[in-house]
Amino acid sequence: MGIIVQKFGGTSVADPQKIHNVAKAVIREKENGNDVVVVVSAMGHTTDYLVKLANEVTCNPDSREMDMLLSTGEQVSIALLAMAIQANGYKAVSMNGQQVGIITECIHSKARIVDIKTEKLQKHLNAGKIIVVAGFQGVTPEGEITTLGRGGSDTSAVAIAAALNAQRCDIYTDVEGVYATDPRIVPNVKKASEISYEEMLELARVGANVLHPRSVETAKQFNVPLRVRSSFNLDNLGTLIIGVDNMEIYKPVAGVAADSSQVRILLSNLPDIPGTAAKLFGALAKNNISVDMIIQSLANNGTNSIAFTVASDDLNNTIETLNSVESSKSAEILIDKDIAKVSIVGAGMVDRPGIAADMFKSLAQKDINIKMISTSEIKISCLVDKNKASDAIKALCKEFGLESDEKAVVKGDLPNL
Amino acid sequence: MGIIVQKFGGTSVADPQKIHNVAKAVIREKENGNDVVVVVSAMGHTTDYLVKLANEVTCNPDSREMDMLLSTGEQVSIALLAMAIQANGYKAVSMNGQQVGIITECIHSKARIVDIKTEKLQKHLNAGKIIVVAGFQGVTPEGEITTLGRGGSDTSAVAIAAALNAQRCDIYTDVEGVYATDPRIVPNVKKASEISYEEMLELARVGANVLHPRSVETAKQFNVPLRVRSSFNLDNLGTLIIGVDNMEIYKPVAGVAADSSQVRILLSNLPDIPGTAAKLFGALAKNNISVDMIIQSLANNGTNSIAFTVASDDLNNTIETLNSVESSKSAEILIDKDIAKVSIVGAGMVDRPGIAADMFKSLAQKDINIKMISTSEIKISCLVDKNKASDAIKALCKEFGLESDEKAVVKGDLPNL
Repeated sequence: MGIIVQKFGGTSVADPQKIHNVAKAVIREKENGNDVVVVVSAMGHTTDYLVKLANEVTCNPDSREMDMLLSTGEQVSIALLAMAIQANGYKAVSMNGQQVGIITECIHSKARIVDIKTEKLQKHLNAGKIIVVAGFQGVTPEGEITTLGRGGSDTSAVAIAAALNAQRCDIYTDVEGVYATDPRIVPNVKKASEISYEEMLELARVGANVLHPRSVETAKQFNVPLRVRSSFNLDNLGTLIIGVDNMEIYKPVAGVAADSSQVRILLSNLPDIPGTAAKLFGALAKNNISVDMIIQSLANNGTNSIAFTVASDDLNNTIETLNSVESSKSAEILIDKDIAKVSIVGAGMVDRPGIAADMFKSLAQKDINIKMISTSEIKISCLVDKNKASDAIKALCKEFGLESDEKAVVKGDLPNL
Repeated sequence: MGIIVQKFGGTSVADPQKIHNVAKAVIREKENGNDVVVVVSAMGHTTDYLVKLANEVTCNPDSREMDMLLSTGEQVSIALLAMAIQANGYKAVSMNGQQVGIITECIHSKARIVDIKTEKLQKHLNAGKIIVVAGFQGVTPEGEITTLGRGGSDTSAVAIAAALNAQRCDIYTDVEGVYATDPRIVPNVKKASEISYEEMLELARVGANVLHPRSVETAKQFNVPLRVRSSFNLDNLGTLIIGVDNMEIYKPVAGVAADSSQVRILLSNLPDIPGTAAKLFGALAKNNISVDMIIQSLANNGTNSIAFTVASDDLNNTIETLNSVESSKSAEILIDKDIAKVSIVGAGMVDRPGIAADMFKSLAQKDINIKMISTSEIKISCLVDKNKASDAIKALCKEFGLESDEKAVVKGDLPNL
């Protein structure tokens, strides 16, 4: 018995019937003897509708007024969900970000939470009430309404769970849990029953988008057990995301993901003098361009080659920056857009030295050429041709035993983050 | 130069184009050199839509959650209007009831304002900003969101004007001002350029519904000059509502109105003993039934007759109450539903003794039978057959010079209160 924080996204509260289904899931947890705080997003396409309205008024809406506008979406959901819970004979109370005291920085449209007041929450819980909290929104110490940006509602839920020292935070989505890879590529992929924060973060960084990294990082920081589970199948416990130290077993490879949003840039004929790389990457960093993979190789003729990847969106900015740096002005620049980064992630790989070799061998067997490699403690990434990405994922799932006998459940779109 | 408070109803902000029209009216007042606070209602049918949603969730929504739900409607309007004003190059800031500090009692769905904090309002005005405030809503000292019920947005505007010691409060509607009677009955009725709070209140009480009496009462209490004007014709100054003492001239009859929402109950054969009336009306009062007109007459046979009117909605409750009182159990009860109360209202009638006689004569000339009469200092009401009400109004407008040479402007529905 303890406090359970539940979070339901916009698709789960899209209409009155669905709101009643959510009420059932909430009451079920209350009936288990827990205190329940439930965090909800705006109904279905409400946010899109409000953004459209704003754009009809002005092409450049002020971000403060945008937050004022968008925060109404969640306030509608919480009132309706509280009513639905009450209609079933349970005590419930809705609270917006201002009323709870979800204190944020004063940065509109992407504020970070700095504090959550627990006094009122605790008072309502002590009175036996189910609390329905508006996700995605907060308030500055001066009373300005803010929104949290991408992954906001999940982050609200995790942060409230941390503040209340909750037993667990359950993120209800339209998938059944965390799969080892995208079920649309490998239909019989295994669902993880447990995965570590670190693995989840690496998977999110390399292309899996079940949870926004921000909420996982918050959960990791405050050691809040997170459960990703289906709002359509309440009997399925989904995937528990916890610290590595708390895991019972962890596999060398927990998941496989591909990211096709990068481009590779190859600079050849660079002067082989100290500080060249530092100057290049210093200039890129100064222009807020994140560089992902980097390889440097010495050519025979005493010149250097450097290859690296950046987000496609940053390509133009990257080329401009390179042209402004003295040492790369004379270099030859080659751009490769048809690439994908395929990664395997697993907290167990640190203890098993052969994993990298197994990955390379598996790709080679499928005639997939590896263009770049990068590794971290719990991740190995290989750059391959974009049209080989699906084949690579399938081969790697087979290689590392991530297939099951059952077909994974895929419910339309990915969850509303 | 001073502070002007403007109020726009839901039809005035029903879509982005209309919101831009409101922005123009706001900027016009700012350009006149005034500080401007603008109060708005929810867009068009938003409130109806939200009520419908709630009713789809439960047939008996909690009033606290209903206020949480409905208060989002105005918050959407204020954000969009602030954006529209900003798009025209003016500084604007939106504020909900909680942010302003519109403090109310903790009575959901019909809270009364007890205080309005002016600190933040004044700060924004000093910074040259146009402030856009959500009407119809407030907050209790404990931070609970409340709504003000019928006439709420008008009342918000008047109360803010009073708190800021504003020069004037302009209520923008879809009529051109206050007409002496309903222009749908008398198309060439005169529009008043000035009318007193008292006359406006009496007109509202007897069936005219340009402004909710609550906002007029607040304006009277704090002596806030109110202007009712058209949001479609900004050059028309509409009708100024002020204290009698401040009026330049006032006519014996300012307006004529009819109210068809009452029924007449005739009790005959009542015992002619002291206390009968007291017992009857005491019982009705105890059951929260408001009695309007009352006539008592002594019949020849030593019994009494009492006739009175109540709202049609209270009819069943009234009959039940009468049957429970000892002294009326033996009485004969006659109910007349086909009645209308026709009233003339004017602050000047107190100085002119012939007005009542003129009214009776005018009705008699049209063969309209008067069933009951009641008078106050500035009002005379006659009960007539319902199907004669229009004829009565026409005759009285002619009698008291309330016709003009021009056709009154009628824009669809009456304003959103």
